[in-house]
Amino acid sequence: MFSPRRLALACVTASLALPAFAVEKKAEKPVAPYDVAQPAAETLDLNMYARIREEGLRHSHVMQLADALNDGIGPRLTGSPNMAKANAWTRDTLTTMGLENAHLEDWGEFGMGWQQINTWVRMVSPDPEPLWAQAAPWSPATAGPVKGEVVYVDLATVDLDKLQGKLAGKIVLLGAMRSTPDITEPLFTRYTDAQLKELEAYPGPRRTGVDRAAIAETIRLDALRTRALKMFASEGVLAIVTPSRDGRNGGGTGIIFDDNGANSLVNALHAQKPENKQTIPNAVMMVEHYNRLARMIAAHVPVTVELNIETKFTGDHEHGFNTVAEIPGTDPKLKDEVVMVGGHLDSWISGTGATDNGAGSVVAMEAVRILKALEIKPRRTIRIALWSGEEQGIYGSGGYVKQHFGTFAEPEKPSPASTPDFMRLHGKLTTTREWETLDAYYNLDNGTGMVRGVYTQGNFGIAPIFAQWIAPLKDLGVTTVTTRDTGGTDHLSFDAVGLPGFQFIQDPMDYDTRTHHSDMDTVDRLHAFDLEQAAVVEAIFLYNTAQREQMMPRKPFPHPENEKKLTAPLPDIYPNAVK
Amino acid sequence: MFSPRRLALACVTASLALPAFAVEKKAEKPVAPYDVAQPAAETLDLNMYARIREEGLRHSHVMQLADALNDGIGPRLTGSPNMAKANAWTRDTLTTMGLENAHLEDWGEFGMGWQQINTWVRMVSPDPEPLWAQAAPWSPATAGPVKGEVVYVDLATVDLDKLQGKLAGKIVLLGAMRSTPDITEPLFTRYTDAQLKELEAYPGPRRTGVDRAAIAETIRLDALRTRALKMFASEGVLAIVTPSRDGRNGGGTGIIFDDNGANSLVNALHAQKPENKQTIPNAVMMVEHYNRLARMIAAHVPVTVELNIETKFTGDHEHGFNTVAEIPGTDPKLKDEVVMVGGHLDSWISGTGATDNGAGSVVAMEAVRILKALEIKPRRTIRIALWSGEEQGIYGSGGYVKQHFGTFAEPEKPSPASTPDFMRLHGKLTTTREWETLDAYYNLDNGTGMVRGVYTQGNFGIAPIFAQWIAPLKDLGVTTVTTRDTGGTDHLSFDAVGLPGFQFIQDPMDYDTRTHHSDMDTVDRLHAFDLEQAAVVEAIFLYNTAQREQMMPRKPFPHPENEKKLTAPLPDIYPNAVK
Repeated sequence: MFSPRRLALACVTASLALPAFAVEKKAEKPVAPYDVAQPAAETLDLNMYARIREEGLRHSHVMQLADALNDGIGPRLTGSPNMAKANAWTRDTLTTMGLENAHLEDWGEFGMGWQQINTWVRMVSPDPEPLWAQAAPWSPATAGPVKGEVVYVDLATVDLDKLQGKLAGKIVLLGAMRSTPDITEPLFTRYTDAQLKELEAYPGPRRTGVDRAAIAETIRLDALRTRALKMFASEGVLAIVTPSRDGRNGGGTGIIFDDNGANSLVNALHAQKPENKQTIPNAVMMVEHYNRLARMIAAHVPVTVELNIETKFTGDHEHGFNTVAEIPGTDPKLKDEVVMVGGHLDSWISGTGATDNGAGSVVAMEAVRILKALEIKPRRTIRIALWSGEEQGIYGSGGYVKQHFGTFAEPEKPSPASTPDFMRLHGKLTTTREWETLDAYYNLDNGTGMVRGVYTQGNFGIAPIFAQWIAPLKDLGVTTVTTRDTGGTDHLSFDAVGLPGFQFIQDPMDYDTRTHHSDMDTVDRLHAFDLEQAAVVEAIFLYNTAQREQMMPRKPFPHPENEKKLTAPLPDIYPNAVK
Repeated sequence: MFSPRRLALACVTASLALPAFAVEKKAEKPVAPYDVAQPAAETLDLNMYARIREEGLRHSHVMQLADALNDGIGPRLTGSPNMAKANAWTRDTLTTMGLENAHLEDWGEFGMGWQQINTWVRMVSPDPEPLWAQAAPWSPATAGPVKGEVVYVDLATVDLDKLQGKLAGKIVLLGAMRSTPDITEPLFTRYTDAQLKELEAYPGPRRTGVDRAAIAETIRLDALRTRALKMFASEGVLAIVTPSRDGRNGGGTGIIFDDNGANSLVNALHAQKPENKQTIPNAVMMVEHYNRLARMIAAHVPVTVELNIETKFTGDHEHGFNTVAEIPGTDPKLKDEVVMVGGHLDSWISGTGATDNGAGSVVAMEAVRILKALEIKPRRTIRIALWSGEEQGIYGSGGYVKQHFGTFAEPEKPSPASTPDFMRLHGKLTTTREWETLDAYYNLDNGTGMVRGVYTQGNFGIAPIFAQWIAPLKDLGVTTVTTRDTGGTDHLSFDAVGLPGFQFIQDPMDYDTRTHHSDMDTVDRLHAFDLEQAAVVEAIFLYNTAQREQMMPRKPFPHPENEKKLTAPLPDIYPNAVK
C-alpha cells in the first residue's frame, strides 16, 4: 500500500496549485454484457463454499508461500535484483501450482535498479556507540566508511547563509528532531462490531478544508531543501542522515520507516528516476539515535560520526514487470471474460515487505492454488496479477490497465510534469475489447488482517450482490459491505477507467502503527489464520464471479451520458469576485 | 534496577540446590537513638514544603542534568571509561552545586573494564541486508569484519554430537527463536487509584511453589551450554549471535535488550570477571532479524553473515567507585547522624541508561540541589551516594554498606562460590559506630515515573510517619504507604544489615515493557514533570528526616532477642520420612 497523501502533498508542492482529481471523460458508449439487468437473488454454490473452506483452512500453503517470499527473497524494491527474483519465483511457483500461461509482463520503464548491501553508522566521539540506520532507497554509496563532524539542519529554522563555507567533510543531520510519544493505546487492534457498523455509513470522516498554511510551509521547506541540497553538494558534504518518521500512537519509536519520500527530505518523489539521482549518500536513522545526536549538537557538543552506506546501482533504465498467470475459462460463451485477483509484489526495503504486500501476494497465490487443488473448471477465465512499482505510484497495475483496457489522451490543459500519473488531468478515454470483458478485479493490500468485508467503491449495483456472497461467511468474520471508497492501492488503476476494482476491508492489526514501510514488516507480524481466511474469501469471490450468469454491474461512470454533467463548469457564484 | 530473578535462577543452576535467603543473625544489641518512643504526630514545616515545591517545580534543573548525563556521557557499564566519566562528572557537578566533600569511594574490585566501539552485522547471502545487533557486554572483538555460514543451535533440542567437526569458521545462532506477540495492551501505563489501593494490602501476589521442572530444565541447558561453548571454541566458531529477550506485553519487538545474562546464553553471571572471560565474540540481535535467519536455516537455506564486533578491554581488575557528597549537618547534637539519598549511576550498554537509572541519579542530584538552592542548614548531615556495579548485583551499595555500616562473618556452612553475594548465607553481623547514626536511605530506581508513595519494607513503625509526611503531597499524586517489600535495587543493601532503606513507589510508565535494559532507554523516554515531582518528594523526605527530633524507627530485625526464633530449626513434621 502506498501513501497517497504523501504523493498528493508532493504534487501540490511541485505544481504550486491544488491538484484536480476530476477527469475529462470522453469514453464511447460501451458494449455492455455487464450492463444487463441483475437478478435480485444470487445463485450460490454452498457446497463449493464448503470445499474451498476445507482446502483453505485445513490444507493451507499460505504461510509456506509467505516464508519463501519474504524470508527467502527479502525486500523487493521495484527495479532491484530481489524484485526480479520475486517475479521469477512467483511465475515459476504459479506454474508449479498448475496455472497456465504464467509469465512476466513488462509495464514500462521504471528507473534505476538499486540495492542496499550494508549500512552502518556509529558515533566515534564523544561516545563510541553503534547507531541504527538504513540507506534511503536509491542513495548512492559512500566511498567505504567515512568519518565527519555532524551538523544539525532543521530546515524550518535554519539560516543556510550562516552555514556557507562550513560544510566540507561534514555529515548533515537533515530534518527536525521527532517526537516519541508514549504508547498509551494498544498498537495492535481488530475491528469491533461497532466500528464495522460505522463503516457501513457513507461518507466516512467528513472532508475538511485544505490546510493552506501547511501547504505554504511545505512549499517553503521544499524550496529551501532544494537550495540546501545544492549547497551541500557544492560544499562537499560527506553524507546526509534523516530521521525516521513517526508511527501512529507512538508505534514509530525504536523502529525505522524507510519509505523514501515520506521520511527522507532528500529522496523526494521519483527518486528512482536517473534524472533525480542524488549525489550525496543518505541514511535514515532510528528516531532515538537521531534525537540524541541532535540534542548533543544543540548542547554545543562536537559530535563525530562514522558511517558506511554500501549500495549498488544495477541499471539506469530498468523496466518493471508484473507476474501474470491464469486458470482458463471453460464455458465457450464466457471463457473470454476475465476475473482478476492480485496484490503487489514490490515493497520498500526496511523490513521484508511481509505485510506490505507480501501478504496480499501470497493470499492471491493461495486463492488460485485452492481453486486448482479443487480442480475447478471455471466458466470465465481467472487471472492472477502480482504488480510491481506500486509503492512509487501504482505503476505496475496502471501500466497493465493502460496496455490492456484503456488509455486516456492528453487533456487540453496538461498537468505539470511533476504531477504523479494517477493525479493528472486526463483527456478522452479510449477503451479496448478487453475492457469490455474484464469482469472484476479483487485486491488485498491492507496488511495481514483477515477480511471483514469489502469496499464497493461507490458501486451501488454490486453492493447487494456482495452482501449475498458474504452471508455464508459470517462465521469467518466477514460481515460488512460498505459503499465507501478506499484508496492507496492497485484497485484504483481499474476504478480509474471505470472497471470494477475492489479492495477488501481488513482488520487493522498493527499495520498503520508499526509495520507499514518499516523494519518491523517481517514474517513475525503475519497471522496465519487471517491469511488463510483471506485466501478462502478471495477464492469464493473469484469462483462466484467466474460462474455467474451475468458479468458484474459497473458504476455509471464513465458512460458518455453522465459525462456532460461531470465536466460542465460550475456557475460562478462567488459574491463580489472580479470577472 | 537489576533483575534478581535472573540471578536467583543462575544461582540455583550453579549450586544445584535451592538458595536460602535466611540469615544467621548474631548482632549485638545496638545502642539506640533510633529506638526511642516515636511521637504520634509529626511536626511538619509546611512552609518548607512550599519552598521546595516552588524551587523543584518552577526552577528545576533535572532535565538539564539528565541530558548531560545520558546524552553527554552515554551508557555507563561499570568498569568502563564512560563509568569513570560519570563518576567524575557527578562529583564535579555536586561540588558546583555547593555540596561538600564530593568524592569517589572505591568499593572494591569489580572485574574487567570494557567498552563497545562499534558493532554491525549484515546478511551477505542469499539477501544482502543490514541486521541490528549489539555486542554482548564483555564480548571480545572479532578480528575486524568476519564472514561465515550460519548454524542455528537451539540448546533445548540440539544434538551437539551431530555438529562435531562442522563448526570451523561458522557463526552460531545460539538460542531458540523468540516469540513476537502482538501489542494488544498499552505499553505505557500509570497506576490507577484502584491499583494503588491494592498495593496497600499485604502480601501482594501469593507466593507459589517452586517450579522444579523449570529449574531442572535450566540446569540441563546450563550444562549443555557449558559443553557447547567448549566445543564451539575448540572447533573454531567465529562468533556467536544470541536473540534479544522478550519484553512484557510484546514490548520487546523491534528492540534490543542487552542485559548480559538475561538475554545472552553465552555471557552468564559474573561475565565481568577475568576468570570468566569469553573467547568467542558474541552479539545480541533484534528478535525479528534473529528469527528470520533461524527460519531460513530451518528451511535449509544456506545463510552467510558478515559481522564486526569492535570492543575494547580497558583493564582486568578495575575497581568500582561510588560518587558521594554531603550537605553537612549543623545541629551540634545531631550533625553526626546521616540521612542518605541515592540511585545507581551505572547502566547496561544498549541505550544510555536514561531510565535505569540515570533517572534516579539525576533526581537525587536535583533533590540536594533544591536543598542547597534554598540554603537549608540541616540539623543532620544529608548525603547523596550514586552507586555503581548495581546491575551486576548491587555491588556499589553493598560495598559501601560493608565499609561503613556492618559486615557479616562467614557462616558455619558457607554457600557455594557461585552464589551471588546478596543471596549467601551469612554469619554474625558486626556493626560500626556509623551503623548507629545512619538514619535512613531513600532510593529511586524504577524508571522515569513520578512518586506515588513508598514501600516501607515491612517497617511498621515507620508507616504512620511516612503517611503524615505525604498527606500534603496528595495533589502531586503521592498517596500510598505500603508495608510491602520491594526488591531489585540498592535499598536492599541497607535493609540487609537492618538499616532503614526505602524505594519509592513509582508510576510504571514503559519501564517493564520497553526501556529496562534496552536500546529504548534514552532521554526520549524521560518525563520531565515526573522527575521534577520525584526530586521534590525526595527533597522533602530528606528535609523531614534531617530535621526530626528522633531518628527514624527501625525494624526489630536484627535484634538478638529475635534471633533465636529466626535461626531455630523447624521441628521435623514430615510423615514417614526416614530419619
